[in-house]
Amino acid sequence: MRLGLLQLNPKVGDLRGNAARVEAAYERAAALGAELCVTPELALTGYPPRDMLLYTGFARAARAEAEALAARLHAKFPNGPALLLGCPELNATGQGKALFNAALWCEAGAIRHSFRKSLLPTYDVFDEARYFEPAPAGDANVLRYRGVVLGITICEDLWNDKDYWPHRLYPVDPVEAACAAGAQALINLSASPFSLRKQALRQDMLSAIAKKRGLPLAYCNQAGGNDELVFDGRSTLYAADGSVAARAAGFAEDVLLADLSAPAIPVSLDDDLSAPAETWRALVLGTRDYLSKCGFKKALLGLSGGIDSAVVAAVAAEALGPQNVLGVLMPSPWSSRGSIDDSLELAKNLGMPTQTIAIEPLMRAFDASLCDSFAALAPGAGPGITEENVQSRIRGNLLMALSNKTGALLLTTGNKSELAVGYCTIYGDMSGGFAVISDLPKTQVYALARHINALKGQAIPPAIIDKAPSAELRPGQKDQDSLPPYDILDAILALHIEKEQTAAEIVAAGFEAATVARVCALVKGAEFKRRQAAPGIKVAWRSFGSGWRMPLAAAALP
Amino acid sequence: MRLGLLQLNPKVGDLRGNAARVEAAYERAAALGAELCVTPELALTGYPPRDMLLYTGFARAARAEAEALAARLHAKFPNGPALLLGCPELNATGQGKALFNAALWCEAGAIRHSFRKSLLPTYDVFDEARYFEPAPAGDANVLRYRGVVLGITICEDLWNDKDYWPHRLYPVDPVEAACAAGAQALINLSASPFSLRKQALRQDMLSAIAKKRGLPLAYCNQAGGNDELVFDGRSTLYAADGSVAARAAGFAEDVLLADLSAPAIPVSLDDDLSAPAETWRALVLGTRDYLSKCGFKKALLGLSGGIDSAVVAAVAAEALGPQNVLGVLMPSPWSSRGSIDDSLELAKNLGMPTQTIAIEPLMRAFDASLCDSFAALAPGAGPGITEENVQSRIRGNLLMALSNKTGALLLTTGNKSELAVGYCTIYGDMSGGFAVISDLPKTQVYALARHINALKGQAIPPAIIDKAPSAELRPGQKDQDSLPPYDILDAILALHIEKEQTAAEIVAAGFEAATVARVCALVKGAEFKRRQAAPGIKVAWRSFGSGWRMPLAAAALP
Repeated sequence: MRLGLLQLNPKVGDLRGNAARVEAAYERAAALGAELCVTPELALTGYPPRDMLLYTGFARAARAEAEALAARLHAKFPNGPALLLGCPELNATGQGKALFNAALWCEAGAIRHSFRKSLLPTYDVFDEARYFEPAPAGDANVLRYRGVVLGITICEDLWNDKDYWPHRLYPVDPVEAACAAGAQALINLSASPFSLRKQALRQDMLSAIAKKRGLPLAYCNQAGGNDELVFDGRSTLYAADGSVAARAAGFAEDVLLADLSAPAIPVSLDDDLSAPAETWRALVLGTRDYLSKCGFKKALLGLSGGIDSAVVAAVAAEALGPQNVLGVLMPSPWSSRGSIDDSLELAKNLGMPTQTIAIEPLMRAFDASLCDSFAALAPGAGPGITEENVQSRIRGNLLMALSNKTGALLLTTGNKSELAVGYCTIYGDMSGGFAVISDLPKTQVYALARHINALKGQAIPPAIIDKAPSAELRPGQKDQDSLPPYDILDAILALHIEKEQTAAEIVAAGFEAATVARVCALVKGAEFKRRQAAPGIKVAWRSFGSGWRMPLAAAALP
Repeated sequence: MRLGLLQLNPKVGDLRGNAARVEAAYERAAALGAELCVTPELALTGYPPRDMLLYTGFARAARAEAEALAARLHAKFPNGPALLLGCPELNATGQGKALFNAALWCEAGAIRHSFRKSLLPTYDVFDEARYFEPAPAGDANVLRYRGVVLGITICEDLWNDKDYWPHRLYPVDPVEAACAAGAQALINLSASPFSLRKQALRQDMLSAIAKKRGLPLAYCNQAGGNDELVFDGRSTLYAADGSVAARAAGFAEDVLLADLSAPAIPVSLDDDLSAPAETWRALVLGTRDYLSKCGFKKALLGLSGGIDSAVVAAVAAEALGPQNVLGVLMPSPWSSRGSIDDSLELAKNLGMPTQTIAIEPLMRAFDASLCDSFAALAPGAGPGITEENVQSRIRGNLLMALSNKTGALLLTTGNKSELAVGYCTIYGDMSGGFAVISDLPKTQVYALARHINALKGQAIPPAIIDKAPSAELRPGQKDQDSLPPYDILDAILALHIEKEQTAAEIVAAGFEAATVARVCALVKGAEFKRRQAAPGIKVAWRSFGSGWRMPLAAAALP
């Protein structure tokens, strides 16, 4: 049987538009000879629809859209392929959560069956137990179609094989259930977000399942960026021996014709899966989709002469076209000449327009406005971090004014190391609607800069990569006066944030106790800043944002 | 049997401190003759510990603290009461989530049993399925102690009675299981957060369960504010006929001696449960606890002459003492004389210090700094919302500078109506660490102001209550030039936000279609502002904040 895997990039909540995307891809697949078309998980709503799912009016509208789509496809293609369509389904059992996460079987103009997801991920960025009831015990997840018994599962349903995972999250395995019911091929609708090293894991696990079951496995994933999440597509057909028989594009929409009964044809897997290459593709797609799905054509950002803003500028220029990205230089008396020159050279290399606004007059105006109150409230206190923050917030105000006046989205340029330890000013350099590299530790920012220069002809001036990082908020300031060296800092942060290790465990792994204690205390102390941070693009296994839910008025971890 | 209900106010994550709180309350209860002491749910960690629970080192430290506490209590009181202690427990079954939400039975110096929560709330602000495995099927939740079979449940376990709820969220009822196992009394450890009208619901439901089962029911709730949530205490003993036999304080720590075998003694329920009275208590406690648990003694806020900042000032003055709350007046050329005079009168009435910083010089400096870029990027554009936002962000910068310089926390003063429709400036008036009234619609702000004046001798000048609301960001501006009348707006918002109704449903309820469409569009368009908003205090059934998880780059609800 020939499947058409419709690897779509839906916009969350855009039921009408997403139905049209399904329809167009279905037409392409039908023209290629597909006998069954499969969408990603919840393709009609886009994934993740989050609390839109709490509106039953939304679920009803999705159902109506699915019914209209089924009728429309049948009118156009009376003998066309059936369609497995990801769509929420109202739970009519009278008990439990209001919805099922379902795959609707559309055939001959109507919805004929529904298959419900059994395993509901409720960890990290996933909240499925918030919305969905699992498939009722005894629900069949197989269907005979054109002589083949298909085992139909949804995303996480594949992720609980007892031979693959040393620790299982769920007591049941829907793949096992489908096989017990006679499945001859496995089909999975997914919305599996990108993170570094995940593609290798997916491929290893899905291949192991196909091989173990001796069945072909067709996996259809979503593509595109939705808020913090980037979906990397790469829908794949695994042959019954576990080999990859066909694979769709990475980080883009695609329609893949996958023949379940054809012999396995080795396909070349020529993606560069290195961290900088994967990161580049994810950030460009995530930035492009966030802006376009929010209705922005243009962006702006502050160019400080440092590596963070340089990398964000390069990503934005690639995502939106350089003419649509404005770089704003806002030098202060503490800015080095090099920072200004380097920023102008970067913008020239990328082809971006710039504006320059010196902030010294504004700094003086704030000093004058605040001096009486400071004298009254904190007599004798000299200038310090307060004045550094004022500078940063002056820049935030200027950037937001340019954003408001021109309709360009302000991109914030902070990296994950800064955001982790609070080396950033809330309402200052943290201002902005989207945080392009907020999930990249500083060491990965450097690696990405080198990758960009390899791709884009040294667009980032070497001086930007070579200089010591500095916020330039006071004369001679360097990041490393306030923070541990970035290689040490990032290693500690990886254990603390991604591996959920406490300070004692990190010290046991060989790091200096005083440094670990300081870093963990900084992470805790910056929680209030992260709570008000812009959304960023998830790249790591664990990221700040919707998958990081720490209390604020709390003691430190032990 | 005499229970000591230890209605504690724990600090989240403060294992050592919370153990000391349990110990002190246990000593009081033992001195009063308690035979069994009961804490709230997860009292050792404080509720909700959120992602601290993902650190197994944290759960191990909590266990060690519980063991040490059990030993310490036994050393001090060799024949003292047993203790039912809310504490996470590592799941050693080898499958599922890493933890149980448990009640540890501490007796004779050690942990003797554990009782696991069965029903894990995963809706609104609750994410328990993210962390916990439910009690394994067949887990006993009864224990015989001093001749009485006790049925032991944790919070949500009580909330699934099939006769009480027309729609049940869960298939099992732990109360029914305990009764089937012979329970002669019901004990519940809770962390049930406050919202308006919830106490009446709780009392009705718990009374119905006691009466239906013919058993006394002792409910021990947490007190105090933890981030967005305020726990109102009000631990209660229901007699077997459903009447209230004893009840602890509202919105405060308490130790309640509750005799299961004594006849029901009617107690007077003299709380004023009106919305303004409940709101006042919740906001004062929530503000006091957020600041003290974060280590702040002082706060500051901008005083605009409007009702929002007046109410926040009154709450803060009550919570922290008026001498610890600084009011900052930042008049612009568009500020009315009345606004300044009214703010000064308010501060005088409350006993707060003030500072005044006129912002006109800063407005002129920004105009001068931006004019060339505006001319280049948006030629011909006149002044408008951009310039209003610049003013608001100048004020945000000044307030944050005073906060940074003095160590006082900046309170933000926006109300729920504004935050819903985006009638507020991100990084401007939205700046601040805690949003005291962000869950109060404007109409409730007025009601609270009148309540405050009744309590506090007309502290809020009548002119502040009587004037038409205005942001005063341009000459003659009034809120009602941009927004529907607040009574209409708030009624629509209540349906859209608290009742999860779509526009079509709200129109069907009788509101004007154009107004509903406009309000719903504004709510959607302000999502990006709320994403970066300060945490506030939950008052409503559904609030912005951790219980509101909407996508950003998304289409509007249908």
